[in-house]
Amino acid sequence: MGRVIVLRLGHRVKRDQRVTTHVALTARALGASSMTFSGDYDEVVIKSVERVTENWGGDFKVEYTKSWEKFLLDFKRGGGFAVHLTMYGVNLPDVVEDLRRKLRERDLVLVVSSQKTPPRVYELADLNVAVTNQPHSEVAAVALAIDWLFEGRELSRSFQNARIFVLPSPRGKLVVRHDTH
Amino acid sequence: MGRVIVLRLGHRVKRDQRVTTHVALTARALGASSMTFSGDYDEVVIKSVERVTENWGGDFKVEYTKSWEKFLLDFKRGGGFAVHLTMYGVNLPDVVEDLRRKLRERDLVLVVSSQKTPPRVYELADLNVAVTNQPHSEVAAVALAIDWLFEGRELSRSFQNARIFVLPSPRGKLVVRHDTH
Repeated sequence: MGRVIVLRLGHRVKRDQRVTTHVALTARALGASSMTFSGDYDEVVIKSVERVTENWGGDFKVEYTKSWEKFLLDFKRGGGFAVHLTMYGVNLPDVVEDLRRKLRERDLVLVVSSQKTPPRVYELADLNVAVTNQPHSEVAAVALAIDWLFEGRELSRSFQNARIFVLPSPRGKLVVRHDTH
Repeated sequence: MGRVIVLRLGHRVKRDQRVTTHVALTARALGASSMTFSGDYDEVVIKSVERVTENWGGDFKVEYTKSWEKFLLDFKRGGGFAVHLTMYGVNLPDVVEDLRRKLRERDLVLVVSSQKTPPRVYELADLNVAVTNQPHSEVAAVALAIDWLFEGRELSRSFQNARIFVLPSPRGKLVVRHDTH
């Protein structure tokens, strides 16, 4: 089984901080291995995602790259399959079976961009995939793509080495904390 | 079949503008009927969602309410079922069948909050539901909840009266525009 990773393009400090953080936390919660982002370097995004992983477990990584193009070329050279999530692509339900087959043997990167998508992404991607051909949100696109790839199983996964975890409850909050001392 | 609507709590102008807009556009793209938000009144959110609906079709509504509590009480009095999406709730896969049954006969509201969730929401909700018990994003929570409720069918729906629509393409952008004159 390959890994699912996310590549977030064109991050802008301040303006994109919350959305990029949401993309990363969503990827982590749904079982992706890492998010790499390009555009502006942003310590705030890195720290807030790392803090979540420290507390809530797992080994999700968040990293910055100066050149998303080099990152993508290296990834493909290493055998990975690149999926660009864009409303202009072929619709997810029409290709998801094929993507699941690919994921059994290869890593898969989900590329999402901010406001302006560099035209080169459409060419470098092995496939441009739409999560509906409607305008909405890169957070939703990443969430739905991962959920469909994993056929919903990731919603019930648990995280190793969590300091904090939730006991599911129909009314209220039940939180368990592991003290490390 | 009931309708799915979204209630977004605690909107703050500027700080939440993009995330609230993403929640609305995601709800629209996935087949929800409307989003109502409380907190700060925000013309920017309303206008940008309305512009998307004008261009891309359908009849999604975005509305503001001063009192989310009154909204929720009225909704429940009218026979609707209130689901509060929170990481502390019971996990979506464990209750989705029951929610689908409810939706066959009743409207369903998905409540998402911003930073601080008023404790009263946990009580007023008929059910508190987690889309994983991990911290991530209200955009992803809304996306996955609607997708699971509709069993993925909404990803292939089309929108009435669209001025613009996309022809799905593996490489590049194919956009069709209807001129209205």
